[in-house]
Amino acid sequence: MQQPRSTSTSNSKVILFDVNETLLDMSKLKNALIKAFNNKAAFQQWFGLLLQYSLVDTVTNHYHDFRTIGDAALDMTAAMLQERTLKSAEKHKLLALMTELPAHKDVPDGLKMLAKAGYSLVALTNSTRSVLDEQLRYADIIHYFEQGLSVDDQRRYKPQLDVYHTAARQAGAEPASAILVAAHGWDIAGALHAGLAAGFIARKGQTLYPLAPSPTYQGKTLPEVAKQIIDKKAPQRP
Amino acid sequence: MQQPRSTSTSNSKVILFDVNETLLDMSKLKNALIKAFNNKAAFQQWFGLLLQYSLVDTVTNHYHDFRTIGDAALDMTAAMLQERTLKSAEKHKLLALMTELPAHKDVPDGLKMLAKAGYSLVALTNSTRSVLDEQLRYADIIHYFEQGLSVDDQRRYKPQLDVYHTAARQAGAEPASAILVAAHGWDIAGALHAGLAAGFIARKGQTLYPLAPSPTYQGKTLPEVAKQIIDKKAPQRP
Repeated sequence: MQQPRSTSTSNSKVILFDVNETLLDMSKLKNALIKAFNNKAAFQQWFGLLLQYSLVDTVTNHYHDFRTIGDAALDMTAAMLQERTLKSAEKHKLLALMTELPAHKDVPDGLKMLAKAGYSLVALTNSTRSVLDEQLRYADIIHYFEQGLSVDDQRRYKPQLDVYHTAARQAGAEPASAILVAAHGWDIAGALHAGLAAGFIARKGQTLYPLAPSPTYQGKTLPEVAKQIIDKKAPQRP
Repeated sequence: MQQPRSTSTSNSKVILFDVNETLLDMSKLKNALIKAFNNKAAFQQWFGLLLQYSLVDTVTNHYHDFRTIGDAALDMTAAMLQERTLKSAEKHKLLALMTELPAHKDVPDGLKMLAKAGYSLVALTNSTRSVLDEQLRYADIIHYFEQGLSVDDQRRYKPQLDVYHTAARQAGAEPASAILVAAHGWDIAGALHAGLAAGFIARKGQTLYPLAPSPTYQGKTLPEVAKQIIDKKAPQRP
């Protein structure tokens, strides 16, 4: 998987994929966090803070990479749940699990269907490019992707609208002809407001934002969403 | 407490106060949420989603008032914790508790100290003005405040930097001569990045954002923070 290139035509069928929870199963990290803090709410608290503070950075015109905010969010999680603060080595070990996550079982089949149908598959993540590469390589799905894009290049986080516009163009498509596939309501809301089509995978415990437009496609697995995308041939936009 | 006015001089000593958790004790709402979902993590999950999605709205150039997002966040909380979805009437009853919260016990003394020292006290909240008025009246602290300001006028949420700039000026002060007092790390980060001074009250389970500058003042109660503000006379800024 190489750096962004722009060899695709503007007519290309581009699908941008969110990575964490959408393609990768975070259970391993979830269980390790629950164990480390001895608190069942630890993972949701940590991941919620990570997402919230990536937006705090964005609206205050500051930037730290996702891993750095993830490290800070571990300390905030300890304080907010009133559990013990983890040592540096413990935090390092937990955050390293981010690059050792398996793909959800349905993911390879879904990616295969879309690649076979002629779609250009591109990863678009809040993590850095080097973490992204490690993640896709570990999960053994990197060969499906033409490109890997990170918000790190733009130094502001999804769902800021420019991130989707720039990513679509880096993938060789106009935003209106690109599709984002994600398992998070905030990502779907961002893509739709940015003018892309969007496919929601309802992973366990994930939900749409009720105040955003409905996703163009939705299902419980990637193959379900992929089938809808392929059957409609192109996203149905008003 | 009237609508924003601009009779103060630019030399006035203005303190902007966050409201929820900073001045008001949210335990009543917290316990009701835990009971409604039968899940100990319910309040943290809900309030985290409320804050996260207020920023999702802000970065996608959309706006819904805080109560509307709070209602949506109740549905999202049910989905994410995999608990039952609340009925409309249950949600209404829970959200009504937002306007029936007592002040933290230390708050009246702290407000009295600051008013006596000649500071102009102004509330600045992510809630609407009408909710704010009800909250301060119920908590019996409304008489300490010269003004009540809501992000609702600007249709974007704290910690977006313009919100602090505009609020300081509405209160008759330049941002650099105003102070924000809050119990949330994201609010302190926003105020400092916007050029205000900031006082952090470390309420139980609240914490600073480790990647933001340190607050100008901090303590466990409002009187502790108030004493620091008064002793230094004016915020110490580089």
